[in-house]
Amino acid sequence: MNVKNTESSYMSSFFNPGSLVIIGASNAPGNLGAPMCHSLKKLGYEGNVFVVNRKGEEVHGCAGFVSISEVPGKIELAVILTPAKTVPRIMRECGEKRISNVIIETAGFGELGEEGKELQQEIDLTAREYGIRFIGPNCIGSMDAHRRFTSFFGVKPGVFDELFDNPGETSIITQSGGVGTLVLRSLMSDVVGFSKIVSIGNRADIDESDMLEYLANDPLTGVICMYLENIGDGKKLMRAASGSDKPVLVYKAGTTSQGARAASSHTAGMANNNLVFESACRQAGIVRLKSVTELYSMPKIFVSMPVLKGNRVVIVTNTGAFGTILTDLLVNSGMNPVVLSDKMQAAIVNTATVFNAANPIDLGPGIDGEAFLSVFRLLLESDEVDGLVLAINVWQQSIIDAIIRLTDLCREYGKPAAIYTPNSIERVLHVRRNFGIPAFETPEEAVRALVVSHRYHVIQSKKSVNGSRNTMMRDKKFTGDKPVGADDTMIPGMVESVDQAIE
Amino acid sequence: MNVKNTESSYMSSFFNPGSLVIIGASNAPGNLGAPMCHSLKKLGYEGNVFVVNRKGEEVHGCAGFVSISEVPGKIELAVILTPAKTVPRIMRECGEKRISNVIIETAGFGELGEEGKELQQEIDLTAREYGIRFIGPNCIGSMDAHRRFTSFFGVKPGVFDELFDNPGETSIITQSGGVGTLVLRSLMSDVVGFSKIVSIGNRADIDESDMLEYLANDPLTGVICMYLENIGDGKKLMRAASGSDKPVLVYKAGTTSQGARAASSHTAGMANNNLVFESACRQAGIVRLKSVTELYSMPKIFVSMPVLKGNRVVIVTNTGAFGTILTDLLVNSGMNPVVLSDKMQAAIVNTATVFNAANPIDLGPGIDGEAFLSVFRLLLESDEVDGLVLAINVWQQSIIDAIIRLTDLCREYGKPAAIYTPNSIERVLHVRRNFGIPAFETPEEAVRALVVSHRYHVIQSKKSVNGSRNTMMRDKKFTGDKPVGADDTMIPGMVESVDQAIE
Repeated sequence: MNVKNTESSYMSSFFNPGSLVIIGASNAPGNLGAPMCHSLKKLGYEGNVFVVNRKGEEVHGCAGFVSISEVPGKIELAVILTPAKTVPRIMRECGEKRISNVIIETAGFGELGEEGKELQQEIDLTAREYGIRFIGPNCIGSMDAHRRFTSFFGVKPGVFDELFDNPGETSIITQSGGVGTLVLRSLMSDVVGFSKIVSIGNRADIDESDMLEYLANDPLTGVICMYLENIGDGKKLMRAASGSDKPVLVYKAGTTSQGARAASSHTAGMANNNLVFESACRQAGIVRLKSVTELYSMPKIFVSMPVLKGNRVVIVTNTGAFGTILTDLLVNSGMNPVVLSDKMQAAIVNTATVFNAANPIDLGPGIDGEAFLSVFRLLLESDEVDGLVLAINVWQQSIIDAIIRLTDLCREYGKPAAIYTPNSIERVLHVRRNFGIPAFETPEEAVRALVVSHRYHVIQSKKSVNGSRNTMMRDKKFTGDKPVGADDTMIPGMVESVDQAIE
Repeated sequence: MNVKNTESSYMSSFFNPGSLVIIGASNAPGNLGAPMCHSLKKLGYEGNVFVVNRKGEEVHGCAGFVSISEVPGKIELAVILTPAKTVPRIMRECGEKRISNVIIETAGFGELGEEGKELQQEIDLTAREYGIRFIGPNCIGSMDAHRRFTSFFGVKPGVFDELFDNPGETSIITQSGGVGTLVLRSLMSDVVGFSKIVSIGNRADIDESDMLEYLANDPLTGVICMYLENIGDGKKLMRAASGSDKPVLVYKAGTTSQGARAASSHTAGMANNNLVFESACRQAGIVRLKSVTELYSMPKIFVSMPVLKGNRVVIVTNTGAFGTILTDLLVNSGMNPVVLSDKMQAAIVNTATVFNAANPIDLGPGIDGEAFLSVFRLLLESDEVDGLVLAINVWQQSIIDAIIRLTDLCREYGKPAAIYTPNSIERVLHVRRNFGIPAFETPEEAVRALVVSHRYHVIQSKKSVNGSRNTMMRDKKFTGDKPVGADDTMIPGMVESVDQAIE
């Protein structure tokens, strides 16, 4: 992999600092830093936590001081929550204290006209002078579930305990705090835990590409999800993505000119041409997501299942209509709902009473868990099949048990199954929560997960064949993976000129 | 309206029979008719319920007989659950008993090859001989929430009590029992109740068009949702849809050739060209849905909000990113995220501290419910605005109260608001369940609801201008409403020839 480890080592202090100071945390009512102190104590975070405020008061057990210079010992990270106009002075004090990492969560900089831009420039100069690397301004902070660390402001202690108690391997880079919070809350309703999350805000210094490069090399990260509204440096992002062996899933908003205008008012970025971005993603091996929802619904296909290595997918259902619906969706996504050979069909008919054995396989409403398992096994063993999509309305324990067992079988045979349970959302949450079944919420989501998984597989395969990656965008298989709002035609020569055009 | 009331009066016996007999209900373990008896008793259904079984035994308080002829008095409806080969004989007995309405729930007819087709023909002949009108075969029955009636087989008593206790105005016609059940269960997680549901199965006699015509004239039905895999009689469906003043929302599966093949194996229908069907929908004023999910997510925009009369939509949010995301979605759906006049922007800025007043209106995280309400009022009053879409992360009671109040204001001003609360699905369910807020689950769903609502408005407007309806399909505003899998081009002359082509 093409990564400079020397540059990424400083990044760990943003997620697991040995010591930190929260500037602006106090006991005043409504203070946004106090819950951060409270959360760190409640989570049992192991590093030293100090606060700086006007009174020098202790906050939730974190020793307080009136200035940064008074804080004892070496400090790895400063989190700034004070008003915008105070930030340049505080940055200088951090520099004097030799704090190398800063998260500026305060808003009111580049996103708010000329005055804000000047303040931001002042901070940039100070940071360069003292060699400080910083995240923000205008962000909500970082979290590391494995280290039980949070620098999110204003979040009540306990809200995300469930996530800290069950860390996972999905890491999130987000240009919006609101989207970050949505993703975290939604992962709480799912089977997938998070590893790290960072809100990059106006990314005046550290940007999405720095973070991507860091997470691509982070042993605790397996899947990387990004929410972007605009790209700071196109070449840099492509380099970072090309260097990742892990799935890089990106949802980019601001793809229409009106949307881009809306974006510039809150994250201070420049608009990028959607078509150019699309080309860049294909070239760099980024899997582009179609909705904000996919940032939290898609990771589970990677975390709980092997990747889809071919496009031949068999549908297994116990209600005929979902066989039809899924067939349409597979075809429209460029997947192949392959018709099974007579031999395979005969084997399936020998195993269980089926309404239809050709694909979709309709096992009807009366079948038991053992029959399901036998059919699953036949399909996973077969060299006619690359993966499965299920639409099984689970209600009997024997069928739930069969589906739990299926997830093990999938790993054993190296083929994925996207599981959909056609029932109310409450029932879907129930099978996820109580049985850990990685269930999708709609048939569209299940099929989309297979497409995304297969897309990643193709990216990885092409990466291993050196130099052939640029042909990926012409791959016919991915017609169904076209993002909402993208034009239907590719402009000739775009691949060659994308590096220039995206900047 | 263009409806023959004389023909639709017989239909009421399928939903509210004064007396019925369930043939095949017994106390044998696993019997599918027993729960039907149990449910009818538990629901307190007012009509007389009898059963026929080999022993003539009573089932859950419903008097039992060994033959239909022995059942006392006039019987309005027979529900048949016995094996396929017995059905022709039973139909004849129903005829002799002068039962005019029958629901044949048994499977194993036209959907299962030659032998089944012959059985089905036999039934058709008997029905014609005795003047019986029947639903099915191969269906799961009918329900009427207002009359507390069910003829669904195999459903445990109590499962749908919540729906019977809170009847609504959404009626469902489904060619699949599985989809019908999914829709009912999903409505239980939402703010919308159902009125009637009917599973039409192989529709050997009564088809989707008969039902549509009946429901279009049913005073207890306000919105009609249909799940179809194939169309029996295209002209008839178009006639029925054209005669409806109510929204007719259709999701059709089997739109790909592979999907259509899958469909024919379980509902015994013929494939229809997707493009032709699309044209027919536009011509007849059917709102075509894009997913099975929309069958239960879309009705609430009609039930809880006025229709969208123009395409100028204002976004109100308290997290910037959702302003950007929704702007993209509106633009890509043919809606207009209109930039507000300077005067309107000044009025908004005078009312509340906002990050952005142009549209999207970003009220920031710190605002209170009163400020939200003042902004809502300004927007609804304005002649620059046709409707709203909200992305407000509700967590304070004052904001929840403001949103509850907003739904009243929308009715007062005759403009809709599509409400999205960017939070975990559990929180969305919470605001629906505890506060009756008609919240959508994703930003895509919220925007889609506005598109669907506006689509219906345009259909109704064109219907009132006699003869101009055929131009609808050329309406540029609806480019975003193109169903998944439809071709991008319309074939010239298709509109004129669609009546012939769809059959």
